[in-house]
Amino acid sequence: MIRETNEWLTFERRFQQIIQLSNHTVGQNRLVYSPNWIAAQSALIRFGQQIGLTVMVDNYGNVYLDLPGKDDQVIATGSHMDTVIDGGKYDGLYGVLGGLQAINALKNRLGTPQHTLRLISFSEEEGSRFNITFSGSKYYALHQSVTALTDADGISFEQARSQAVKQLQSLPNVIAKRPAIPASFTELHIEQGPRLITSHDQIGLVSGIVGQRRWTVTVQGESNHAGTTPMNERHDALQAAVTMISSLNQHAHQLSDNLTFTVGQLNVSPNTSNVIPGTVTFTIDARHADDHVLDVFEQSINTTEHQLADSQIKVHFKRYVKDSPATFDTTLLSQNELIAQQLGLTSRVMTSGAGHDSYVVNQVSPTTMIFVPSEGGISHAPNEFTQPADLKAGIALLMASLQAQAY
Amino acid sequence: MIRETNEWLTFERRFQQIIQLSNHTVGQNRLVYSPNWIAAQSALIRFGQQIGLTVMVDNYGNVYLDLPGKDDQVIATGSHMDTVIDGGKYDGLYGVLGGLQAINALKNRLGTPQHTLRLISFSEEEGSRFNITFSGSKYYALHQSVTALTDADGISFEQARSQAVKQLQSLPNVIAKRPAIPASFTELHIEQGPRLITSHDQIGLVSGIVGQRRWTVTVQGESNHAGTTPMNERHDALQAAVTMISSLNQHAHQLSDNLTFTVGQLNVSPNTSNVIPGTVTFTIDARHADDHVLDVFEQSINTTEHQLADSQIKVHFKRYVKDSPATFDTTLLSQNELIAQQLGLTSRVMTSGAGHDSYVVNQVSPTTMIFVPSEGGISHAPNEFTQPADLKAGIALLMASLQAQAY
Repeated sequence: MIRETNEWLTFERRFQQIIQLSNHTVGQNRLVYSPNWIAAQSALIRFGQQIGLTVMVDNYGNVYLDLPGKDDQVIATGSHMDTVIDGGKYDGLYGVLGGLQAINALKNRLGTPQHTLRLISFSEEEGSRFNITFSGSKYYALHQSVTALTDADGISFEQARSQAVKQLQSLPNVIAKRPAIPASFTELHIEQGPRLITSHDQIGLVSGIVGQRRWTVTVQGESNHAGTTPMNERHDALQAAVTMISSLNQHAHQLSDNLTFTVGQLNVSPNTSNVIPGTVTFTIDARHADDHVLDVFEQSINTTEHQLADSQIKVHFKRYVKDSPATFDTTLLSQNELIAQQLGLTSRVMTSGAGHDSYVVNQVSPTTMIFVPSEGGISHAPNEFTQPADLKAGIALLMASLQAQAY
Repeated sequence: MIRETNEWLTFERRFQQIIQLSNHTVGQNRLVYSPNWIAAQSALIRFGQQIGLTVMVDNYGNVYLDLPGKDDQVIATGSHMDTVIDGGKYDGLYGVLGGLQAINALKNRLGTPQHTLRLISFSEEEGSRFNITFSGSKYYALHQSVTALTDADGISFEQARSQAVKQLQSLPNVIAKRPAIPASFTELHIEQGPRLITSHDQIGLVSGIVGQRRWTVTVQGESNHAGTTPMNERHDALQAAVTMISSLNQHAHQLSDNLTFTVGQLNVSPNTSNVIPGTVTFTIDARHADDHVLDVFEQSINTTEHQLADSQIKVHFKRYVKDSPATFDTTLLSQNELIAQQLGLTSRVMTSGAGHDSYVVNQVSPTTMIFVPSEGGISHAPNEFTQPADLKAGIALLMASLQAQAY
């Protein structure tokens, strides 16, 4: 546990320092490679150097703070430094500074560990500046590079990346390096959903990440005059879309309580009050921990068109995302479950409905995640909030978990 | 009937001349008071003067071509000269030049009528330049003026009107005048819907215009993460809107086959594939010839909100159009029915689902309308088309009707 008041105050001070660097009129803004982001990663590097950690920065701006152990095996923790536009204070940053705090406390209390402890601050996870997500962890864990992307202002990823990385790597005592893959990775993160708040658990132990598929659907009918076209001679694209969405929603509900089904985007053409819609496009986002459930749902999507009474309505589906579910390491999960119990923390095992850097790192290294509650389930918004007691509980569990693995 | 080939050729020549003045890359463009519109009304004035009609232009640019009779009673016909943006060739212009052709033929065959025959070319009906419809007929029949409107380029109605009217009124032998209300008004027009094409009738005899109501509906839910928010904790504004639209569509269908129900416009916010919609706004357009049916439908709109399972979804309705149905003169209708039969034309009595200048004139004078078929029911589009045989049939009926009234 963070028993000492001054340990919590150190975390608080660092946290306030970074969010003040990123304060925007509305929310937090640390888009990857932006001035705010460079300032935040630079501050983190200073925090690490102040407590004697070894600092590495790779060519994508991922920051690694190592507490060298008696051997080369690496036990890692961390999360991402970037935010969405006008985001909250906790998404990403909590896991970075919580991880630093855990290593800091272990160093102070127990000295040199058996295995090396590493804090990773990934450069980018949100995909809010360039049209790519997880570019930091993909570069570290999978050695994947980004090709030919530009942001909304026309600045290329390459230009933004090279300028920002140059600044970080030229700071005193920074080693330009992408270190080797760790023996394990634990990510501390806010839940970003309401399940822990609803169940009154302090900790979520994440068993994996749901599979996710997305489609665009184009419904082609016939645009016509809203007054002069009798109801039985219409080919109304919006009414067809409404029928399909109703039917799919019902089907998703019957298939599994845990299947999330979202039509987030819908556009009507010509979108005029007195004209029958000729074309409607909409998106479907479906997520479930079991790929088979998503397969069955995908079949129902493909047959929805045939349920339309009007054969002159043409429907075109295009799947543009198919991410398989991820199952995290069961040993780390069981270990954390036991430690949470020993610390007197109430916990539940759950899957994550959102993607995380852990989804990427899990492909090369045993990985687990620790969730803490998000008030109101709110995230990606300025009013994102987690109670201090819950922040402390999460850091305490991470600390005990790293201790069990590294000492 | 237009028995003489040269009578039809005269109509064709005048028709081609005006549509060539208004040809656009895509369709016809004669927005009120525009250069194309001025050229078209000027051409019409020349056509009238060439056959010896008296020309008047009022301060709104309505053009009146009179064949003076033995007394002052006026039997009028006509339609509007303006088009929608990229409109078709027949909407409005057919009734103007068809009316001119009928008066021209009657003058040639029968000489001076007992009552004065008048062709009216109304300045504006479509509302495509300024945010007002029927400004021409409202000025003539109801003495209503337009206040403080500007077009998309910031040009005021007053400026556009005064410049255009000045040009027309300064043409040779044009009398600047708004003449008195006629004893009857007959408007010849394309149907703009598919009913005559479907029933294979040559003529539609219009008994009235449907009542029309429009609403904007705002559905306020809660925007949230599409992956981390369980289905039973969502307040999805789009799913609520879909439920309401489904239910209203079903209710409209049960209420009356002739009740048209259109959701033409629908906007989602924030409209992102992985975010649950927080707000949805949509429009409802409902039309029926019986105001009572619209009253009942309006009640069902107001109770739809209570059918939503989720009490946290807030719905706000705002009605912004309430036009009562119009019933046209029954004597003129019966007379036209008999004449059509005598001419060997198949006809049906029908209500119009769209508004027309006749809706306005009907408030001050006995009014009727004659519809001819629109191929494919298409209107307000460049591929609007009516077969020449149908154009001829409509003009023949109008001619016989004017003859019966004026000679």
